[in-house]
Amino acid sequence: MLKLFEYNWQVRQDWFDWCRDVPEEELLKKRTGGVGGILHTLFHIIDVEYSWICGLEGKPEFKEPFDAYASLKQVMDLSAEFHKEVRPFTAAWTEDMEQKVLTDTWPNGEKVSFKYGEIMRHVIAHEIHHIGQLSVWSRELGKVPVTANFIRRGLF
Amino acid sequence: MLKLFEYNWQVRQDWFDWCRDVPEEELLKKRTGGVGGILHTLFHIIDVEYSWICGLEGKPEFKEPFDAYASLKQVMDLSAEFHKEVRPFTAAWTEDMEQKVLTDTWPNGEKVSFKYGEIMRHVIAHEIHHIGQLSVWSRELGKVPVTANFIRRGLF
Repeated sequence: MLKLFEYNWQVRQDWFDWCRDVPEEELLKKRTGGVGGILHTLFHIIDVEYSWICGLEGKPEFKEPFDAYASLKQVMDLSAEFHKEVRPFTAAWTEDMEQKVLTDTWPNGEKVSFKYGEIMRHVIAHEIHHIGQLSVWSRELGKVPVTANFIRRGLF
Repeated sequence: MLKLFEYNWQVRQDWFDWCRDVPEEELLKKRTGGVGGILHTLFHIIDVEYSWICGLEGKPEFKEPFDAYASLKQVMDLSAEFHKEVRPFTAAWTEDMEQKVLTDTWPNGEKVSFKYGEIMRHVIAHEIHHIGQLSVWSRELGKVPVTANFIRRGLF
């Protein structure tokens, strides 16, 4: 399980590096698809990963809006801050946690329950999916996107 | 491991269903990013999944071009055909296969070696990443994309 998280964290860092060469107005520009922008997508990935892990740990989730973090530095700092909590939980993952159940009540009052293993995979797929959107916007900007390859990253 | 493959296969089927409501010229149209088109992306996902699994099984990889499969029906049929071989290998996956080594020589003569667990995760991430690109093109067409959610798919 950890390997795919490590992949996501590497790819995220590569996108942060990619962002350094792009004018901030392009990072903030409204685009078609996903949550509608490059930096907003990176914020959203970080928010969703952290909020679900908080859910699994019984901690309150993160609820602040993107507007409060709308610069590359703020998004990178937020990622680093949350990583201090996300990494240990993910690194301590064991097979017997797969079938544990999280029950929650959503803002609309709906009661939901998910298996821990289901949520961990949801978080993994969520980030990879949104990164795919960044790759299209990168080409629209005339820039080569970060490689999405899992191989050749020293993960094995 | 199997769960994320099952997720990809469900999402892929949802995209095939999504394609049925889209004119074929839109499915074939050249677009910015990825391999440059909706149907070509679905073909590429199927090709890459099958070719890597063939590699792990010691079978010859698939080498035909997209041009030979440039209709929704042909791509769906190819997916179903390859699935007969991909599914059993994936379903029979065990922990002790993680560190097995595949060695290969690439077309440029480079000798490469990868762990089996590395390749399986590469295949998973590859499909999710390209599906993210489809979601952008879907919005460009004014259509709601297939949900990328792993939760609520009955996978756990």
